[in-house]
Amino acid sequence: MRILGLDPGLGTTGWGLIEADGNRLRHIANGQLKTDSSAELPRRLAHLADQLDALVGDQKPDTTAVEEVFVNKNPQSTLKLAQARGAVLAACGRASLPVAEHAARLVKKAVVGTGGAEKAQVQAMLKVLLPGVAIAGADAADALAVAIADAHLGGGR
Amino acid sequence: MRILGLDPGLGTTGWGLIEADGNRLRHIANGQLKTDSSAELPRRLAHLADQLDALVGDQKPDTTAVEEVFVNKNPQSTLKLAQARGAVLAACGRASLPVAEHAARLVKKAVVGTGGAEKAQVQAMLKVLLPGVAIAGADAADALAVAIADAHLGGGR
Repeated sequence: MRILGLDPGLGTTGWGLIEADGNRLRHIANGQLKTDSSAELPRRLAHLADQLDALVGDQKPDTTAVEEVFVNKNPQSTLKLAQARGAVLAACGRASLPVAEHAARLVKKAVVGTGGAEKAQVQAMLKVLLPGVAIAGADAADALAVAIADAHLGGGR
Repeated sequence: MRILGLDPGLGTTGWGLIEADGNRLRHIANGQLKTDSSAELPRRLAHLADQLDALVGDQKPDTTAVEEVFVNKNPQSTLKLAQARGAVLAACGRASLPVAEHAARLVKKAVVGTGGAEKAQVQAMLKVLLPGVAIAGADAADALAVAIADAHLGGGR
C-alpha cells in the first residue's frame, strides 16, 4: 500500500510517500510543492493542483492522508490554508484517491507515542521509522508523519 | 465580453453568465451547481470542479468574478466555504480564466446603488437590469449580481 501524506498550504504543500506492508514501513520519496507568492490566487491554486496531478501520475499512490484542519485564530490565514486545501482535496478526488483525515494529536501519538510531541521530536522519530530518509523541509516532515499515522490508524480501510 | 459570476459554496455554487457590451448588459444563463452532502469532502470538491469545467466548456466565458470572501464567525463554516472556493478558483485558474474579486458592498452598490442593500432589493434590481431573467435560486442571484458588478467595475480590465 503506497500512502501519500499531504500537508496542504498555499505557499508550500508538503508531501511524503511511504510503502506500508503490514507493520513495515518504507520511505519512497518526499518533497514540497511551491507556488509563486507574486502570482494571483487562482493561478497559484491551479499550479498547486497541476503539481499534485503530476505527482500522483508519477508516484501512483493507493491512498492519501491529511491532517484534520487546524482553524487558525487569524481568519485570513485559515482562509488561505483552506482554499489551498480545497484545491488539493479536489485534485485527490478527481484522481479517485481516498483521502483519510487524522487529528493532529493522533498523528503525533502514532509517530512519537504522545499527542503533545514537539515538531523536533516528530522529525527525529521520522528518521528512526524511515531509516536513511532525507526530509525536504518542515512541511514534507508533516506530510510523512501523517502518512505514517495513516499506516498505523488504517485510514478507515 | 462574457462575464461569469460565481458564488462558491460546498453544497451549492451559484453561477450567472452575462454579456456586457459597453453599458449594455444581457442575461445569457444562470444556475446552481450542487454537490451531494452525503459524499465525502474530496468527492464533493471534485464534483464541484468537474461541473465548473463542464460549464466553462459549454458557456465559454471570457472572464469570471467572485465576491471577496466573507469570513464567517463560525470557523467551520468559513472552512467549508473556503475549501469550495479553493476548488472553484483552481478550476478557473486551470482554464486560464481571469478571476476578479469584488467586495460585497461594491457589488450591492453596483447593482442597487447602495452598499447596504438587502438581498430582496438586489434580486428585484436583477430583474430590472436583466429583463426576462428567471433566476435559479439565491446563490445564482448572488452570482448574477457579481457578474453585473464586474461589468460596471471593470474587474481591472
